[in-house]
This record gives sequence, C-alpha cells and structure tokens, in this order.
Amino acid sequence: MSAAEPESSLQSIRYRRGSLAVLDQLALPQHTRYLPVIHVQDGWKVIHKMQVRGAPAIAIVGCLSLAVELVNEPLSDKKTMRQEIEGKLNYLVSARPTAVNIKLAADDLIEFSNSLNEDEFVSAEDMKERFITRIEDMLQKDINDNKAIGKFGAERIIKQTSGESIRVLTHCNTGSLATAGYGTALGVIRSIHSEKKLDHVYCTETRPYNQGARLTAYELVHEKIPSTLIVDSMVAALMKTRNITAVIVGADRVAANGDTANKIGTYQIAVLAKHHSVPFYVAAPLTSIDMSIVSGDHITIEERPEKEMTHIGEHRIAAKGINCWNPSFDITPAALIAGIITEKGVFLPQNLQDTVSLLKKTE
Amino acid sequence: MSAAEPESSLQSIRYRRGSLAVLDQLALPQHTRYLPVIHVQDGWKVIHKMQVRGAPAIAIVGCLSLAVELVNEPLSDKKTMRQEIEGKLNYLVSARPTAVNIKLAADDLIEFSNSLNEDEFVSAEDMKERFITRIEDMLQKDINDNKAIGKFGAERIIKQTSGESIRVLTHCNTGSLATAGYGTALGVIRSIHSEKKLDHVYCTETRPYNQGARLTAYELVHEKIPSTLIVDSMVAALMKTRNITAVIVGADRVAANGDTANKIGTYQIAVLAKHHSVPFYVAAPLTSIDMSIVSGDHITIEERPEKEMTHIGEHRIAAKGINCWNPSFDITPAALIAGIITEKGVFLPQNLQDTVSLLKKTE
Repeated sequence: MSAAEPESSLQSIRYRRGSLAVLDQLALPQHTRYLPVIHVQDGWKVIHKMQVRGAPAIAIVGCLSLAVELVNEPLSDKKTMRQEIEGKLNYLVSARPTAVNIKLAADDLIEFSNSLNEDEFVSAEDMKERFITRIEDMLQKDINDNKAIGKFGAERIIKQTSGESIRVLTHCNTGSLATAGYGTALGVIRSIHSEKKLDHVYCTETRPYNQGARLTAYELVHEKIPSTLIVDSMVAALMKTRNITAVIVGADRVAANGDTANKIGTYQIAVLAKHHSVPFYVAAPLTSIDMSIVSGDHITIEERPEKEMTHIGEHRIAAKGINCWNPSFDITPAALIAGIITEKGVFLPQNLQDTVSLLKKTE
Repeated sequence: MSAAEPESSLQSIRYRRGSLAVLDQLALPQHTRYLPVIHVQDGWKVIHKMQVRGAPAIAIVGCLSLAVELVNEPLSDKKTMRQEIEGKLNYLVSARPTAVNIKLAADDLIEFSNSLNEDEFVSAEDMKERFITRIEDMLQKDINDNKAIGKFGAERIIKQTSGESIRVLTHCNTGSLATAGYGTALGVIRSIHSEKKLDHVYCTETRPYNQGARLTAYELVHEKIPSTLIVDSMVAALMKTRNITAVIVGADRVAANGDTANKIGTYQIAVLAKHHSVPFYVAAPLTSIDMSIVSGDHITIEERPEKEMTHIGEHRIAAKGINCWNPSFDITPAALIAGIITEKGVFLPQNLQDTVSLLKKTE
C-alpha cells in the first residue's frame, strides 16, 4: 500500500519503490482488479485503454511507470539515462492527447533530468535516485493539493449558501479514482460533507464511458455520501426541480483565459447552469492550467472509437450501420465559469493569468 | 400486413381484422421479433413494458387490442358491450400515465360506444362492427396525419433556411416505430430528405432506454438517411461546432399553453437550442394536444424503475447501492418552442389554444 494514500478513500494506485499496480477502472463496478505496471509500455497501455483515467492520475501513473522501469533496470550512464527519460516520457504523453498534466509533468521531469545530467557533481547513481524521488513526490503532492482544493472549494460554496444545506451536481469522475487520492471536484464535495453541510450530491452517469455511474457512484456509496445518480439528459430537469446549489466539475486542461476542456457534456451542463442561475465551478490543481494555451480554441479534442458508444462491453446497444461522433472532451468557455478552485484558492477565470504568474513568481 | 402501412418504412404494427402483432422494440436492434396481441391484457403488457412506445403507437395498439378481443369473442348485448368497452379502455389507459393520445382516444371511443348504445336503430351486431371500424380508422388517420406533419414541417424548415442544406437534431424515437407509420418529428426529417434538402440528421442515444440508439438509428440506417448518433451529453458541443439548422422532437402531451411533455432530456435540448440560437420545433398530431391541461405544471411525470438506469439487459452498469432518479419525461416551456408542427399547420405555442378551438369548430 502506498504510504501516501489516506485510509478512508479508495486506493486507485498501489505503489512501492520498484512496484506499481493500478485499479482497473474498466472492470469497476463489477470487479476490483489490480493491473501490474512493470514497464513504460504497461503505463502507456493502462492510460490509453482508460483503465486508469483522470488527468492527475494519468500523469502520476505514467511517470511512476517510468520510475519503476528505472529502478528495475541496471544503472546506465547519465547521458543514456537522460535520453531514455526524454524518449519514454514523450511516448507516455502520446497515450491521451488532451490531458495536460502528464505533458506538464513530462516537461518538468525532462528539464530536471537535463539539469541533473549537466551538473557534474551529480553521479549517475545520484541522478537516478533524485529523479525517482522527484516522481514519487508527485504522489504525495497530488493528495496535499486535492485536500487544499477541497478546503478552498468547500469554504466558497458554504459561504455562498450562508449555511443552508448544499445540493451539488457533478459530472464524470474526479475522486480518489481520478487522482492519487481524495479528488478534485469530488474532494470539494467530500470536504463539504465532512463539514456536515452537504444535503445531497447528484452525479451524471457520463456517457459513453459511464465514469459517473461506475466510478463516482462507487466512490459515493463507498464513502456513504448521500447521493443520487441521474442520466446525462436529466440535468436541466434536475436544476428546475431540485434547487441545486452549485455544479462542481474537474478539468483535463484549463487555458490561460480560463476556457476549460473537460469530459464531454461539461460544456452543456455549464450552459444549463447559466440558464438556471446555478454557479458552475471547475476544481483543478494548478498543474491542469496550461498558460501556453491562449484559449479553448487551441485545445485539441480527442475523438475516440465508435465502439465506446455502440457497445457496453461486447453487447451492442446501437443499431448496426449507424455512424457515431465520439469527442471525448468539450470546451467550456470561461464566461460560464463562476470560479476555478485550485490548491492556492478560488480564482475568477479572467484573473487566472495574472494570479498564476504571481504564484509562480512567489514560489 | 396492414394495408395502411407504406411499403418503404418499417412495420411496427401488423394488423388484420381479428389479429394483431407488434414489433418488440426492446429486442431491437438485435432481434426483429413480433409479439402477438390477442387480448386487452396483452395490449396493456406490451405498452407497460415499453415493447411498443411512442404516444401515437401506444394509442393505436391499445385500441386495436380491444378491437381484436371484440372480434374474437361472441356477440354480447349492447349494454354489456358498452360496459366492457369502457372498463377495458380505462384499464388500457393505465398502462402509461403520461401519454395523452390513448386517453383521448379512449374518451372518444367511450363516448362513441355510449351513443351507439343509446341509438335504438343500431343493433348489437352493428354496434360491434361500427366500433371496430372506428378503431381501424385510427391506423390510417395516423399515417395521413404524419404525412401532413412531415409536409408542413419540411416546408417551414426549408423556408427558414432559404434553400441551404439542412442539419437537424432529433431526440428519442418518433418514426415508424413510434406511430402507425411515417413518424412525427422523424416524418418531418423524412420529408426534408425526400425534398433533397437534408444534409444530415443527428440523433441522441436517449438514455436510459436508448430509443435513439436502438430505434431512431435503426430507422435512419434502414431509410438510408445520412445520419450520425451522438450521446445525450454531446448536444451543446454539436450545436457549437456543426451549424445545426433546427431541432425537431415529438411530444407525449402538449398543454393548452404550448408547454410540452416529452422524453426526458427534451427540456435541456430546448435550453441548449435557445443558447445557440437554433430553432426548436415540436412535431405532434392534434391528438397529442390536451386542451384540458392549462400548462405543463399540471402534467404528471411518470417515474420509472431504477433498473432502467442501472442495467443494460441483465448487465449492471452502475455501482451497487447507488440511488437513482428516473423521470421518464420532462416539460419544455412554451417560451423555448419556435413552433408546434401539426397535421393542420405549424403554430406558435401562444396561438395554440385559439387555433385548436377554431379547427375544432370548423371540423
């Protein structure tokens, strides 16, 4: 068991130095099955097949797969190690093109390996040790960040409602299963619940992959949080009849202007929230914010295979011969977002650029 | 084969005097299986189980099941026949509480049987014959009405686009499978296609029952209409990126003020259409308009079993222990509707009451 994983939540990533296994999220909720990740190829595969998902978890599992491979192979010279690191990290990034966290983590690690390589006081052994430790730190940092996101988000939403009990809608899965632990949007919900202010949480099933029905519902039942599942087309009817306090979702990538790429369906929930005057929040660590991307127009949207829509497992649910359109993400314009909840506080999308620059300066 | 069914479309209802079979829509798209309907109980069952669905088809199948039962049983006296008719029609109406067409058809048939019973020049034999013919006429009238709906709807939408090719979004199933033939919203689409003005039709899968993926997609493939399936949460992304000309949906019940009860998800598509300035049309025969209901607030929304959401067939897709909310319909306020397409023309919701009264006077 990873020392970093809090006892109360689900364990999606089992890591000890030299050994990694991830909970197969495609097998949930039927089966609780862990997949060993020994090589970088295994890491690529579990990410690509969506056996592990959620932008933070993808980054951590990808990088940990490299750490495990490095630990288990003989020590090479620094230059070879640096080349290997760069090649393998770029390969890992290619497994899911939209998630930014793994790209940022890879860039950071490549830069770090370059500096270790160039530093003549660092031996090959030191380089390997320090590089692996850097990856391992990501695991603990992610949990700490999520707890801070939970705290800031809960504070904001409790303040907004002046103490009334809170009904939240969330989309997709952003919990312990999508992160190293605790969760982003689900971390905020968890935090409101632990403050005893949560009346109810509604989660969408999140077609076509059913992350809501399979994973979020699984976590909510596991944590005994009062909750109800709806299908994706019930959002407006829910907002009309159930007095929803706020929507909280995660993010795969936030652009500099606050436009947010997240699971397909997020954009329409934001439009529906605006129509019903429900504040719409995005919860994401600063690593999900990509200042190199000016706006959502510049985010590549992954399109996934038709079979995800036409089949449940091997069971065909759609008529034969029909074409499908299966974009995995959509872009929610900043104008529809009431706040971006990060580990450093809740920011208005229009203030994001200045705030993040400032935070980076004071780091 | 029913004489009333046009050759080109799917045959959901097979009727000859004394014999009725309906296409089992739950078995689609895997299996094309017809269910014999011999007794009124069979009619109730196929409607309640949703083996036949769509407000017009429900009304026709329910009433035809009574016609078949009457044909196959010995002639009773007029008073007994009248009592039997009233009791059985009220029982049939109870199979699905939201669909208005069967309620209106039942009321009309009960009134008709009362008048036959009271008319001393009508023998028991005549009464039976005339009553059965009245039901059989519903089948042909539904197809004629749908063709008129198709014509008026296509004219309106072609005019709106000034001849550009048209991209339409539809929700749920309103085609040959939901009616006696041709379809309402899908009839309009069919009609635009036959005018060679249709670029593309997008259909939602329509969770939790997947009428879009299973039935509409099946009809579109069958009719070779250029079409693409999306999941319910892709509607806003579609409107943002694919230049949609119009949304056309059916109705289970339209209130006097134009508020429309239709398959869950319709309301949110109407909100999304408004946000993206896409005109939103409801296509429905006048029998779906219930002038006795002032507004949508007075329409009872059927809630269906959780299992429809948590399972696909016997395969569980949602986490164990999660609560579900499963309303079968929602209400789209008249203010979001650009026009109600009927067999007598396209009406603004706010003009519906006056127009329908006028039409009834001139009938």
